[in-house]
Amino acid sequence: MTISIGILGATGYTGAELIRLLHSHPAARITYCSSRQYNGKPISEVLEFLKGSVDIGLEEFDASAIKKRCDVVFSCLPHGVSMGFIAQIIDSVKVVDLSADFRIRDVSVYQGWYQEHTNPELLRKTVYGLCEIYREEIRDARLVANPGCYPTSVLLPLIPLLKAGIISSKDIIVDSKSGVSGAGRGLSLKTHICETGESFLAYKVGRSHRHLPEMEQELSRAAGEKVSIEFTPHLIPISRGMLSTIYMNTSAGEEDLINCLKGFYQGSQFVRVINGLPATKDVRGTNRCLMSVVKNKASVRATIISVIDNLTKGASGQAVQNMNLMFGLDEAAGLDYVPVFP
Amino acid sequence: MTISIGILGATGYTGAELIRLLHSHPAARITYCSSRQYNGKPISEVLEFLKGSVDIGLEEFDASAIKKRCDVVFSCLPHGVSMGFIAQIIDSVKVVDLSADFRIRDVSVYQGWYQEHTNPELLRKTVYGLCEIYREEIRDARLVANPGCYPTSVLLPLIPLLKAGIISSKDIIVDSKSGVSGAGRGLSLKTHICETGESFLAYKVGRSHRHLPEMEQELSRAAGEKVSIEFTPHLIPISRGMLSTIYMNTSAGEEDLINCLKGFYQGSQFVRVINGLPATKDVRGTNRCLMSVVKNKASVRATIISVIDNLTKGASGQAVQNMNLMFGLDEAAGLDYVPVFP
Amino acid sequence: MTISIGILGATGYTGAELIRLLHSHPAARITYCSSRQYNGKPISEVLEFLKGSVDIGLEEFDASAIKKRCDVVFSCLPHGVSMGFIAQIIDSVKVVDLSADFRIRDVSVYQGWYQEHTNPELLRKTVYGLCEIYREEIRDARLVANPGCYPTSVLLPLIPLLKAGIISSKDIIVDSKSGVSGAGRGLSLKTHICETGESFLAYKVGRSHRHLPEMEQELSRAAGEKVSIEFTPHLIPISRGMLSTIYMNTSAGEEDLINCLKGFYQGSQFVRVINGLPATKDVRGTNRCLMSVVKNKASVRATIISVIDNLTKGASGQAVQNMNLMFGLDEAAGLDYVPVFP
Amino acid sequence: MTISIGILGATGYTGAELIRLLHSHPAARITYCSSRQYNGKPISEVLEFLKGSVDIGLEEFDASAIKKRCDVVFSCLPHGVSMGFIAQIIDSVKVVDLSADFRIRDVSVYQGWYQEHTNPELLRKTVYGLCEIYREEIRDARLVANPGCYPTSVLLPLIPLLKAGIISSKDIIVDSKSGVSGAGRGLSLKTHICETGESFLAYKVGRSHRHLPEMEQELSRAAGEKVSIEFTPHLIPISRGMLSTIYMNTSAGEEDLINCLKGFYQGSQFVRVINGLPATKDVRGTNRCLMSVVKNKASVRATIISVIDNLTKGASGQAVQNMNLMFGLDEAAGLDYVPVFP
Repeated sequence: MTISIGILGATGYTGAELIRLLHSHPAARITYCSSRQYNGKPISEVLEFLKGSVDIGLEEFDASAIKKRCDVVFSCLPHGVSMGFIAQIIDSVKVVDLSADFRIRDVSVYQGWYQEHTNPELLRKTVYGLCEIYREEIRDARLVANPGCYPTSVLLPLIPLLKAGIISSKDIIVDSKSGVSGAGRGLSLKTHICETGESFLAYKVGRSHRHLPEMEQELSRAAGEKVSIEFTPHLIPISRGMLSTIYMNTSAGEEDLINCLKGFYQGSQFVRVINGLPATKDVRGTNRCLMSVVKNKASVRATIISVIDNLTKGASGQAVQNMNLMFGLDEAAGLDYVPVFP
Repeated sequence: MTISIGILGATGYTGAELIRLLHSHPAARITYCSSRQYNGKPISEVLEFLKGSVDIGLEEFDASAIKKRCDVVFSCLPHGVSMGFIAQIIDSVKVVDLSADFRIRDVSVYQGWYQEHTNPELLRKTVYGLCEIYREEIRDARLVANPGCYPTSVLLPLIPLLKAGIISSKDIIVDSKSGVSGAGRGLSLKTHICETGESFLAYKVGRSHRHLPEMEQELSRAAGEKVSIEFTPHLIPISRGMLSTIYMNTSAGEEDLINCLKGFYQGSQFVRVINGLPATKDVRGTNRCLMSVVKNKASVRATIISVIDNLTKGASGQAVQNMNLMFGLDEAAGLDYVPVFP
Repeated sequence: MTISIGILGATGYTGAELIRLLHSHPAARITYCSSRQYNGKPISEVLEFLKGSVDIGLEEFDASAIKKRCDVVFSCLPHGVSMGFIAQIIDSVKVVDLSADFRIRDVSVYQGWYQEHTNPELLRKTVYGLCEIYREEIRDARLVANPGCYPTSVLLPLIPLLKAGIISSKDIIVDSKSGVSGAGRGLSLKTHICETGESFLAYKVGRSHRHLPEMEQELSRAAGEKVSIEFTPHLIPISRGMLSTIYMNTSAGEEDLINCLKGFYQGSQFVRVINGLPATKDVRGTNRCLMSVVKNKASVRATIISVIDNLTKGASGQAVQNMNLMFGLDEAAGLDYVPVFP
Repeated sequence: MTISIGILGATGYTGAELIRLLHSHPAARITYCSSRQYNGKPISEVLEFLKGSVDIGLEEFDASAIKKRCDVVFSCLPHGVSMGFIAQIIDSVKVVDLSADFRIRDVSVYQGWYQEHTNPELLRKTVYGLCEIYREEIRDARLVANPGCYPTSVLLPLIPLLKAGIISSKDIIVDSKSGVSGAGRGLSLKTHICETGESFLAYKVGRSHRHLPEMEQELSRAAGEKVSIEFTPHLIPISRGMLSTIYMNTSAGEEDLINCLKGFYQGSQFVRVINGLPATKDVRGTNRCLMSVVKNKASVRATIISVIDNLTKGASGQAVQNMNLMFGLDEAAGLDYVPVFP
């Protein structure tokens, strides 16, 4: 089988990462790439490292062309823009949406954090694409909302524990750190190497980061009750990599917590509970999530460290994993990488 | 006044930072530098950037030479080693000890985390050198135990709030991130640029970092009751800089917390409560501690972000500040730097 | 003596570096800062790390205010813009111009590389501010054209050798590498940390970089004949630092070359010929230029490695050194720093 | 076909890179890994990111085991050590040697730069593994000496031009810059992130780097006369990447030079002459060599910029390419990667 693939907004970082992964995917063929800004140019003129490897031309969005040429479309468009374009093609092609537009089930919550939602009906049919949690629903989905990077790093460790009821759903504190590529390819003093290199900072402290409702929605589902968390994102002066340090209260022991997670992820190739502590370099360029659990012997608290590559498992890698599931392929097809080290 | 200064263990990072700061200090003259490893060489052969600026020769430890040539000694020796040498000179010179040997008041706690203490009597006369908290005691001290870098970044924001009783002394969680210079100049795969650059990790998760008892000691003193905290250190792939994200429970509002801190640090030139969020680059090479407070409107929790340069306010800068106090100088003498930006 | 100082275009990197250096200068007081973009704001709102240290307000350019309040003005404006503003104030204040507008003596050369020159008369009275070469002329100058960063790193090693006639003026090849701050604070994909970090590249290869005519002008003056060089600039993924590798033909031996340079720079505090090879970190944040000479024993060629901090000796530090000379101060006043290490 | 592969010295950076590449190679199976230091441990304990992907045990060198279990061996041992081990197995298995032991044809030259050569007879049968130049000889080779990283980046652009006789073989100057992984995984202050990060330096200036005789040997062969070059290596504060800036004299025009190179590399998938200027990030993790040519219109000189990943095309990638040729596989098997960007 060869799947014909379209990418909307192909020239940003998640688009570039999709192209890298799909280039080595055994069943994928990229047949359509859109870009408003670079419409008409070959993609290798915008992403020069593709020259000689991928040379597809960039086009404007064209629903009928997409329907003719694509089996599946990845949307890397910004939230607010993505839903409108998806609505025009979803009757004919499957879609994995990397924007936030279809992640929040409750329209009023979405509208509180983002903007008006123009397609609440479609929202109801969307599956949240956290592969290891919603694997079965994804197989049958037409539209998958690919999770945010912070939520992926936080939900994978917490959902099994909340489902098992062995940690408290109260007093969860999430202290996350992300590489700068999460801020995208747009220009800002915040991404200038002279301002961001050799520095470290927190941002959107308090209940102000838009990934918060997405996390709380999924944690609440897992816990079977409303869960509120504390969440602080930080910026690491590197391109790729995300580490979340998660504090929780529990009466369970370290072994219990580890066994719960190991049991849950048995058979999931990308998620691993490790001894020792993971570093972001251990997952760079891969679709893995590594986590480790430490129980504080003097308190009721346990700490989990989880790492992902924010552009791979946190975005485009998980999007390909979703596509694999939606088309009945091996979940790991085209994703079995060892990290580039050092 | 010119103060004659000795530095024990002068060729590591805290020694080099002391030399940088003292070189521009209006009342300081370095008259003695010891190094076991490089004994006999000029210091500018080991720290080549000093060539032409500082050219003192490195000597072996010699108590009688120190007593003749120094008014004050900074010990940059490792813990365990430092206390023995200090004991030989403390009758004749003042000492600022950058090791952990005299930081922990309770000998049994010290011995539980470190090793046997050979001089508990001297320990009882030591002042903990957190300048803004123990300013008056430091003025009269003969031996000052210079605080650790993590404790400095954590205690400066928390002590005033605990003293004022406006935060809970329970459920304090400290998530700290440090530049690699904190690991010292010794060789290890953990400091190899190919292993540490472009990566991020947590280490000593759980109750395992030796700065923990030092923090809990001072927090307990401030609170007037035993305080236990959760503490997780992380490694940022930069040389200098430390940021602590501190979570606490409180019924006070954001303004109350800010006012408490601003009031406490009024007149303290180096500690500032700022609007906006601080980055480590805002304090690089300076003796500053910047902090900002955010109250989560939906919960009982407040978050404080504090930043220091781990080698300056977190080590050698605070040591010079202690010396200034011990000799009746302006507390900020030789320390009024603007950061090197960018 | 206190010199009242104005800075035009104060919020870029060279402006920020001037403010850092002048803040610790024993005879300087900043009395005027202009910014078109941030007019009306306090400078510490734009350069946040200045908060609490420097809090002057940003104003629009106002010639009469400058004449009243300033003894000297540093212009950090872009070339083309700078000359017009300087013309309005040069009758009343001394000026150090960090732009290229007054560096090229031959108007037609300037116009070939840049644009129309509106003030060729003033150009004729300008002194090229390479302090160690034109020290005497600078003392009496009203307008000093502060050299470019690449030219500073190249001219300091080559001028003495050409003047002494012990190297050939033919076949000089200059391979230079610069930190990204040389590209300024403006926004571009080329300064995005995700595009520039963990990478290295050459740019403006061939006779295309605007610092070329400036270098050839001064080399020709030193040689007493027209000198053409090969020059290739590169971008290092760091903020600060510049290293030039310079290849030349000579029948002189290594010792002769070293002695020539050492003799020339005897008494020049900032320029040093060293044994061993310099790294950019050895000069970070300082006004130094370090150089070392290696003669290839098997060929007629010698190689010189020179390093500066592109923002200090390559821009704002040298500008302050020029001011010191213009006002009869110690040349090194406010510039005697040891680098921030590590 | 499945090729059974042994790796000697598997836990350094070139070993790790081999394992990464072979893990995704369609015809490779790693059956033997040696390590003196970590003998007895699973490799994923030493290279932790391999956990779950590659879990082979590390063994001591054992010639008879190798002969039984391997079709080909990659030696990542240090020079001097490698030749002795290879001698014990070369009768039964093919070998790609990543050390310098068999690169220099003239034993006396080898011995002048390295040490005594214990197997000059075997040396005579060795093929120099610069794939695009010696493709045919490699197909039939039993022992291939894999080129050094600097030589690869320099020889690929220069050999075709020298063979065509359109550049001068005199006055070639090579200014090369390498990421730190080229220095290996051993511990040294030179690889400490606090000493090397945010800095840049030259090393082994003059005729002192051991890659020089290797380059001159191959350039001389291409030119048909003895070629001496000037070579200066530098260290970039990044893990991976190498850029060489090469200056040469020529009477040919830019188009001629470009056409010569394009013609020579037609059909060579990994070597590309590009418009614009390459950055090391364009080849990170790939087996590519990108180059661009600029003729200086005002002089006889041309400049070539070439980039490779020092660990891939500069070491392990080229080693796999050699293996592919030696076993009659598609030259690009397992090497068709797009770089990890950003």
